[in-house]
Amino acid sequence: MSTSRPQILISEVGPRDGLQSIKSIMPTAAKLRWISALAASGLKEIEVGSFVPPKLLPQMADIREVVAHALSIPGLQVAVLAPNLRGSRSAFEAGVHKVTLPVSVTNEHALANIRKTTGQLIEEVRNIVALRDEQFPGVQIEAGMSVAFGCTIAGTVTDDQTIRMCRAMAECGVDEIGLSDTSGYANPVQVRRLFRRLQSEVGDKAGGAHFHNTRGQGLANVVAALDVGVTTIDSSQAGLGGCPYAPGATGNIVTEDLAFLLEAMGYDTGVDIDKLVSARAILAEGLPGEALYGHVQDAGLPKGFSYADGRARSAPQPEGCLSGVAQ
Amino acid sequence: MSTSRPQILISEVGPRDGLQSIKSIMPTAAKLRWISALAASGLKEIEVGSFVPPKLLPQMADIREVVAHALSIPGLQVAVLAPNLRGSRSAFEAGVHKVTLPVSVTNEHALANIRKTTGQLIEEVRNIVALRDEQFPGVQIEAGMSVAFGCTIAGTVTDDQTIRMCRAMAECGVDEIGLSDTSGYANPVQVRRLFRRLQSEVGDKAGGAHFHNTRGQGLANVVAALDVGVTTIDSSQAGLGGCPYAPGATGNIVTEDLAFLLEAMGYDTGVDIDKLVSARAILAEGLPGEALYGHVQDAGLPKGFSYADGRARSAPQPEGCLSGVAQ
Repeated sequence: MSTSRPQILISEVGPRDGLQSIKSIMPTAAKLRWISALAASGLKEIEVGSFVPPKLLPQMADIREVVAHALSIPGLQVAVLAPNLRGSRSAFEAGVHKVTLPVSVTNEHALANIRKTTGQLIEEVRNIVALRDEQFPGVQIEAGMSVAFGCTIAGTVTDDQTIRMCRAMAECGVDEIGLSDTSGYANPVQVRRLFRRLQSEVGDKAGGAHFHNTRGQGLANVVAALDVGVTTIDSSQAGLGGCPYAPGATGNIVTEDLAFLLEAMGYDTGVDIDKLVSARAILAEGLPGEALYGHVQDAGLPKGFSYADGRARSAPQPEGCLSGVAQ
Repeated sequence: MSTSRPQILISEVGPRDGLQSIKSIMPTAAKLRWISALAASGLKEIEVGSFVPPKLLPQMADIREVVAHALSIPGLQVAVLAPNLRGSRSAFEAGVHKVTLPVSVTNEHALANIRKTTGQLIEEVRNIVALRDEQFPGVQIEAGMSVAFGCTIAGTVTDDQTIRMCRAMAECGVDEIGLSDTSGYANPVQVRRLFRRLQSEVGDKAGGAHFHNTRGQGLANVVAALDVGVTTIDSSQAGLGGCPYAPGATGNIVTEDLAFLLEAMGYDTGVDIDKLVSARAILAEGLPGEALYGHVQDAGLPKGFSYADGRARSAPQPEGCLSGVAQ
């Protein structure tokens, strides 16, 4: 029996945001197997890497092979990150479905990240869109607004400042404008306010949310985003990546935990959580010794859990927790 | 300048829910110092322990000494857990301000936890309230509804089932009825629905929320509870306690992370997060080798962060994160 459940797209960024943030390099063969397993678990969009020179990001040296492999998976939306015109061109030529451009809201972050002012960044985006329009009309372009909720260098970022940059992106002609909490500064009140404002400013171009779990608030911010109608949420298997400066200070929100939250709330993600969890084995094998985060892989799914769309669980697992004298 | 910010009471349960869940026993002297430090950070209510026979919970053998110490701290609301009439009587005699009774919503949990049926449990609560009314009229009694959102033994718990038990508690004459997600099953949609229903059923007696972070959803559920007007949230410093069955499978939500979330959202908690974080040192010393959870102690507070009530930070700390090529 099919009931009409709201659909949320989980955009898996582990292979990009995750892998770029850690020192060790995942062997290509493992990466391809991992991406296949992620797709097999039902994830419909995967950001498979960045088009950045291998000198800067050796983790992404195999990007063309990875993209080719991902493109061979039926039904998968293949996305990549590209920080500039050159990388975007390479991405377009590789045949990706979608390119996300990291666009700093603050001048400080733009300069620190890619040595450009925001003005130069806007110009770059304009050129990237022009190139796409002329030569690669099928590719989607998303502006992912970095430090949209606050900046480690600049500090507090006002809504006005973020929205100004978003408006500039809309004028450049990007298809989608998402908000990223790069520094893990965002809070739910701010999230609702900013996304509502974004939607009223750029209408159909209002995109998804990329939250970090730096201060433990990742999923709290997800709830806020869902409340105001955001339908795409980025996450990373095992919470890979983000900010490695301190042990346990995770970056990205964990795909497994996000999928459980969404399905439990009645949102249809299309993800098979058991299959997703089993994909961690490939990750662990490809990155031996790397810290893997998350809760659901240890806690299991609740007794009586069912998916929002009525699917049965593919592999019921015994639940880990034994109740004791508890409240 | 004082502005009228909504106030949220963080009820610190580390000394009870935290300590009872771990094997090692915190020395009394450390426990007293820890409770003092928690109070000094601004926490206004602390659940300092349980009145349970030392044979069952050796961690609580010093409860009377702990209560006496806590009662000497000016302005602190001293709460304890008591699972039955005998424990409640001891708690009343010790002079606590508040007793929380763990009340299982499901028969299965009641039997497993304290070897009573829910019917017997209701009878017990009636007797506890009667004793309070007759001999200790100043003490507050809260019914903390265990497995209110789902039960590891019984599975799915319907709203009706939970509300039936809540209604029974109201009829027994307890002052407050809180909902506990003992098993970490709850999701935000359910949280809003159940608290709204609780409020409409028992009015003023509708109490606070006790969430577990078993599947990473603790703070997401907090946001949902805040949305429907819940003003008391339980948490545990360093996320101590909950369910120790798997590494990283934390139980309680982390007070530091909760305090940040609330203050960032504009809720006034009265807590000084820097002082709170520094109290962890006492915890670590008193429980060497015990896993301490949370994010804020590593990530620090955002640049530009200010408290909801306009307070300045007491001890500005350098932020840990250095931005790199990030989104």
